[in-house]
Amino acid sequence: MENLSDIGEDALIARLLKQVPISGKGIIIGSGDDCAVTEYSKTHYELLKTDAVIEGVHFLPEENPTRVGWKAIARVISDFAAMGGRPKWFMVTIAIPTSCSVRYLENLYTGMGKCMETHGGILVGGETTRIPPGSSLMISIAATGEVKHDELVLRSEGKVDDSIYVTGKLGGSISGKHLDFQPRIDQASWLVKNFKPNAMMDLSDGLAKDLPRLAKASSCGLILEKNNIPGSLNCNLDQALNNGEDYELLFTVDVNRSEKLENEWRKKFPKLLLTKIGSLVNKQIGESLNGGWDHFL
Amino acid sequence: MENLSDIGEDALIARLLKQVPISGKGIIIGSGDDCAVTEYSKTHYELLKTDAVIEGVHFLPEENPTRVGWKAIARVISDFAAMGGRPKWFMVTIAIPTSCSVRYLENLYTGMGKCMETHGGILVGGETTRIPPGSSLMISIAATGEVKHDELVLRSEGKVDDSIYVTGKLGGSISGKHLDFQPRIDQASWLVKNFKPNAMMDLSDGLAKDLPRLAKASSCGLILEKNNIPGSLNCNLDQALNNGEDYELLFTVDVNRSEKLENEWRKKFPKLLLTKIGSLVNKQIGESLNGGWDHFL
Repeated sequence: MENLSDIGEDALIARLLKQVPISGKGIIIGSGDDCAVTEYSKTHYELLKTDAVIEGVHFLPEENPTRVGWKAIARVISDFAAMGGRPKWFMVTIAIPTSCSVRYLENLYTGMGKCMETHGGILVGGETTRIPPGSSLMISIAATGEVKHDELVLRSEGKVDDSIYVTGKLGGSISGKHLDFQPRIDQASWLVKNFKPNAMMDLSDGLAKDLPRLAKASSCGLILEKNNIPGSLNCNLDQALNNGEDYELLFTVDVNRSEKLENEWRKKFPKLLLTKIGSLVNKQIGESLNGGWDHFL
Repeated sequence: MENLSDIGEDALIARLLKQVPISGKGIIIGSGDDCAVTEYSKTHYELLKTDAVIEGVHFLPEENPTRVGWKAIARVISDFAAMGGRPKWFMVTIAIPTSCSVRYLENLYTGMGKCMETHGGILVGGETTRIPPGSSLMISIAATGEVKHDELVLRSEGKVDDSIYVTGKLGGSISGKHLDFQPRIDQASWLVKNFKPNAMMDLSDGLAKDLPRLAKASSCGLILEKNNIPGSLNCNLDQALNNGEDYELLFTVDVNRSEKLENEWRKKFPKLLLTKIGSLVNKQIGESLNGGWDHFL
């Protein structure tokens, strides 16, 4: 019998989506981008996102719960940023063993609250539910956000010859950044207002996994300038490409706007690196890139 | 150290909500009703809901996954019904061990799809993520719905002297109904258009738990006519009050409209019982009612 480990995450999702209604009036983008996008008002779209963090997979049992709570919310805000939008309403589902202490949960919520206060979002609902003894604690976040019609950026609209950029440094997130990262919401907001990227997504599964996704969604190939990839301290190229959980922005802009973007970025965000790491090209001539994080392989 | 089993679900939630931002412009109702309600358009509110079903808690490992999928979606639709609304966009998060078969998951989605096709809703996103071996499979559903401004019903607007009604029969859900139930979405829709209830909710934790919640939210007491409670076949009063997972509507209407409601209901829904089970009264003279399902006690 075919198991999940035989087919991988992307192929699995494609099969599951055949079982349910997925199209309808009002859907701009369904599954497949960082968020779903639906019609909302004359000026804005609604963004919809769900994301889970699980004990033993996304954090260790002994981890400080305040940091875990921050991470759970920040991951979702990072996805809203990747669409050019902002968070609005949050719902939090926590599945916990009854042996869990009230204090642990309060600290988890304190971390979630700090992230919402810093980057936006209000809690409007959710649920706490018990799990059988021995099961891993799970936090499932669902949220809506909004984006102006003309500021929406998809991962699928990259063009041949676009310059490919990443913010920050890649790799080595496990040493701490995967818990404490700042979602790039202000940077994304500035970008969509000033140098609207053709394509954008956030880096969650590693550049080696996510960049091919962006290129494929955009029907392009890619050329990677490996020497330019900004690795974190003590990270080699392999780690920068494959570690995952970077939560940086990956985006493409028209090559003719590259120089101006780089100059203005340095003035606006002097403390955050912006690096050109390659170009989109015709898909027949692009190089292949494999690796990164897969939930089931 | 204080554990979850020391304080119970309602007290826990009250403590957790102190840690996060919960108020903001555009929120009509936050945590505490069947769904959150937010501003949406000139004619409609948006409903927001998240709900999880967990292997070993809400269904048995050997259960047919198609039925489990149906249940996961139907529970959420039942909550939209309880507000007078309808479902719109769904996101499904599944946390699974990698040893799970692709076929099992496909059947789970088939059940979810059947329920959406029958009662409404479109899948726009979600996630599959792995859990450590030995953990329970978990399905977390997040959804948005909508309700017309003048058809929104809360659990908190019941009035002294209102008649209290339930649909269907209570208790014994574990023998099968908890998996195969039909959410009362059409009945709720007819009610809000024709006999708008003052208060309404869906019965998920048992009448003994949920009716006091409705009464308390409405600042009323309650008188229960125990002899009138419509028990399922082979269920005694205790089971009808406490088993939970009935997924029937519990609502209150002005006593002067009771007779007309009962007559018209019989014509409109001849196959579904509607039973007056008591009245809301001044909170000083109401009786107390304890029991039902609590996730942590």
